[in-house]
Amino acid sequence: MYYQTEITLNPRPRGFHIITREIENAILEISKVKIGIVNIFIKHTSASLTINENVSPEVKTDMQNYFNKLVPDDLPYFEHTLEGPDDMSAHIKSSMLGYSLTIPVTDGRLNLGTWQGIYLCEHRNHGGARRLVITLIGE
Amino acid sequence: MYYQTEITLNPRPRGFHIITREIENAILEISKVKIGIVNIFIKHTSASLTINENVSPEVKTDMQNYFNKLVPDDLPYFEHTLEGPDDMSAHIKSSMLGYSLTIPVTDGRLNLGTWQGIYLCEHRNHGGARRLVITLIGE
Amino acid sequence: MYYQTEITLNPRPRGFHIITREIENAILEISKVKIGIVNIFIKHTSASLTINENVSPEVKTDMQNYFNKLVPDDLPYFEHTLEGPDDMSAHIKSSMLGYSLTIPVTDGRLNLGTWQGIYLCEHRNHGGARRLVITLIGE
Repeated sequence: MYYQTEITLNPRPRGFHIITREIENAILEISKVKIGIVNIFIKHTSASLTINENVSPEVKTDMQNYFNKLVPDDLPYFEHTLEGPDDMSAHIKSSMLGYSLTIPVTDGRLNLGTWQGIYLCEHRNHGGARRLVITLIGE
Repeated sequence: MYYQTEITLNPRPRGFHIITREIENAILEISKVKIGIVNIFIKHTSASLTINENVSPEVKTDMQNYFNKLVPDDLPYFEHTLEGPDDMSAHIKSSMLGYSLTIPVTDGRLNLGTWQGIYLCEHRNHGGARRLVITLIGE
Repeated sequence: MYYQTEITLNPRPRGFHIITREIENAILEISKVKIGIVNIFIKHTSASLTINENVSPEVKTDMQNYFNKLVPDDLPYFEHTLEGPDDMSAHIKSSMLGYSLTIPVTDGRLNLGTWQGIYLCEHRNHGGARRLVITLIGE
């Protein structure tokens, strides 16, 4: 079984946001898959996808503070500055955290760990709506 | 062909550990696959998976020292501290290094480079046993 | 449909290089795939793959400068130094940026965003030719 859909996430403020429910709602066909994988891919270069703790709001805050310090906006040696001080830092964070997730599917569900949630990492101050492609492969 | 299994890795100390052999032993069915992929997924948020050099023990030591300095335990601004000083740093390192690997399968084997090994990155001081889901897709 | 090929990239200088066209040229079979994924895997531990902005040359320069500062060559505590001062830093950067990309395929093409290009991240001063395995799975 091959199933693919493209969804648009509502604009989020800069930071880390759990989107597990939005992913699940986009692939109801997963209920028919006994064994497989889901690939989630973000079609941008200033936002990324990761997995992390799905309960504590402090994890999201700490992630944001850490990555904002690790990759400051507007570093003095940046040459790519035309699109604003948060653009080049967003490109770097995106490559560091990654553009896609591949998650196993087992018995009709995403086989995530108990504490795992899917995160949208919005690295721009005003990133706008973000496009994702979700591909389900399985039997 | 779709094959999936879930395995539990014995507890490892904090650090980087080669687990290539354990992965291979869990998917003996790979011998029947001419072309495909294997997805290896870790069901936790404080340990991760990567690939790196499979011979020199110094690479593992240097990786550990580097990432421990890059993401120190117990940074003063961390708010997520209830689970101990090594918990939030573990969450950050896990997102940085990633939760899954997708490796090509060719002629019945993982098609890794000569020097590539699969690493478990244990970021907690006492992380305990770790669960992996391994999914093989191919023909 | 399962298709796999192994290609060798010409040696590149240390830095970030767009290789989207070389990937596309290696998988002309993609035109027959309506829904699927492509996995691109690099068989080395001192070079990596990522996605980033495909127009501005400054993005590539800034990426290189940033990662060279974040992971300096020849850190005083590195023990893995036999292969030269740029070897251990290359191993770390490779794990940070990752060894493989999984990109959706839609209607016969890589379904990348408008500004996304595929990057080879060459972390060694003289990395030589690099081997990639490209696997196409779809229908």
